[in-house]
Amino acid sequence: MSTELIHDLLGYDGIKIIQRPDMFCFSLDSILLADFIQANAKTKKIIDLGTGNGPIPLFLTLKTKAHIYGIEIQPEVYDLAKRSVELNNLSHQITIINDDIKNVFNHFEPNTFDIVCSNPPYFRYLPTSNINKNDFLTIARHEVKITLSEVIEVASKLLHSGGSFFLVHRSERLQEIFLELKKNKLEAKSLRFIYQKTDSTESDMILIKATKGAKLGLKVMKPLYVYHQHEYTEEILKIFNFK
Amino acid sequence: MSTELIHDLLGYDGIKIIQRPDMFCFSLDSILLADFIQANAKTKKIIDLGTGNGPIPLFLTLKTKAHIYGIEIQPEVYDLAKRSVELNNLSHQITIINDDIKNVFNHFEPNTFDIVCSNPPYFRYLPTSNINKNDFLTIARHEVKITLSEVIEVASKLLHSGGSFFLVHRSERLQEIFLELKKNKLEAKSLRFIYQKTDSTESDMILIKATKGAKLGLKVMKPLYVYHQHEYTEEILKIFNFK
Repeated sequence: MSTELIHDLLGYDGIKIIQRPDMFCFSLDSILLADFIQANAKTKKIIDLGTGNGPIPLFLTLKTKAHIYGIEIQPEVYDLAKRSVELNNLSHQITIINDDIKNVFNHFEPNTFDIVCSNPPYFRYLPTSNINKNDFLTIARHEVKITLSEVIEVASKLLHSGGSFFLVHRSERLQEIFLELKKNKLEAKSLRFIYQKTDSTESDMILIKATKGAKLGLKVMKPLYVYHQHEYTEEILKIFNFK
Repeated sequence: MSTELIHDLLGYDGIKIIQRPDMFCFSLDSILLADFIQANAKTKKIIDLGTGNGPIPLFLTLKTKAHIYGIEIQPEVYDLAKRSVELNNLSHQITIINDDIKNVFNHFEPNTFDIVCSNPPYFRYLPTSNINKNDFLTIARHEVKITLSEVIEVASKLLHSGGSFFLVHRSERLQEIFLELKKNKLEAKSLRFIYQKTDSTESDMILIKATKGAKLGLKVMKPLYVYHQHEYTEEILKIFNFK
C-alpha cells in the first residue's frame, strides 16, 4: 500500500495537490493542457472531463475566476481531487463530481459551458489486451470506461455555441480526432504539437482547441519542446513557474 | 508579353526548366513536396495532378526510375512542361498530358498508380471574388477548375491499395483535408508542418502522405523551417542541392 503524498503544484507555492503514486499522479500533459486553455475574465463555467486528482481545475484557478467542475469516475481518485480542493480552500471555485462522464447530463444542462477540457485515456482498449481492466492506471490510460468518440460527443453537448473544447491527446490519433470533432460540430481552431526533445524526429502529443459552430480555419502554432539536451526548455520552466 | 526563361532546377545542374514569370513559375512548395515523396526502386508509376510547368516530375527523375505522368489543364502551361521534358531528354520517363484532372480516367485505368502527388490550388474560389477566372495564376492558385475534394477523390481512385498520395497544402485547411482523405479511404500516415521562419508563431503549409487502405496511425514529423534569420536553413539548402 502506498502512502499519500502532498506536493506543491509545480512552482506555484500556494497550491498543493494530493498524490498517490500507485493510483494516480498528475502528468505533464495535464499541466500543458491547463496552460493551453484560454480562460479569461469572461469565462463563467468550465468542466474537466476525467479530472483525475484534479490538477487541471487547480491550475486553472491561477488564471480564471470561473467556476470549475471536474468529473472523475474512480471513487478513490475522486477522493484525492476533492481533498486537494479542500486543502487549498478552493471549494467555492472548484466542484469535483464522482460519476461517469457519460452521466454528466444528470448534473448539468446541455449547451451551458464556456469551456470543456479533457486529458482522456489515450489508448484504445482491445479486449485481447493483457491488462487489468480494474486497475487505477489502466482506467486512466486505456479506453475501458470511455472512448475518444464518447468524450468528444459529451464535450460538444456541454458547450454552448461559440464555446471551446481543449484536448490533449496522442499525435498519432489526429485524423480520428478531427473526424470526431467534425461529427460533433466542433471546428478545430488551434493545434500545437508537442515534441519531447528539440531534436525529436516526431511529435508524440498534441494540444487542440476546437470551437462549437465556428468557421473553418485552423491555426497551427509553433512546436512545443519539452526537453533540450536533458533539461526542461525555457518555455516548460515558465509554464511550471520555475523561472 | 514576358519572355521565356530557362532556369536550372535549383542546384541540379543537369536539369533545366522553362519558366514564364507572367504565366507560371514553379514554387518552393513543389520542390518541398517532390523532396517529401517517398519514391524508390519499386515505384513503377507516378502521376502529378496539376503539374504546372513540370517541376515535380523533373525533380522526381533524380530519385526514381518510375514512369512519371503529369496532367495540366492550361495549354500554355502544359506546353512549358512538355518542352522542359524534351529539353532534358526525359521523354522516355516523363509524359505530360494536357487535360482536366477530372478527365484523367480517359487516359488511365483506376487502381493502377503507386504514387499520386499534387500541389493543387490552395484557395477556395468564391463567385464574389474579385479575380479573373481565366488568368493563368488564378487557375493555379484558386479552386476555379477543381476543388480539394475533387483532387483527393481522383487521387484515391488512381491509386492501387497500399499506394500513397502526397499533398502539399495550407495548414489552415488540415481538418478539411483529413475529412476528405477519410471519405476516400486514404489514411493519413505522415504529416510535416512547414514554418517560414525558425521563429514563426504559426505554420502556413503542410506536407501530407496518405496511404490507400492503410491502418490507422499518423506520424507527425519534426517541423520544416524555410528561413533562419533571412537565410535559407541548412535543410532547405540541402533539398535545393546547394550544399
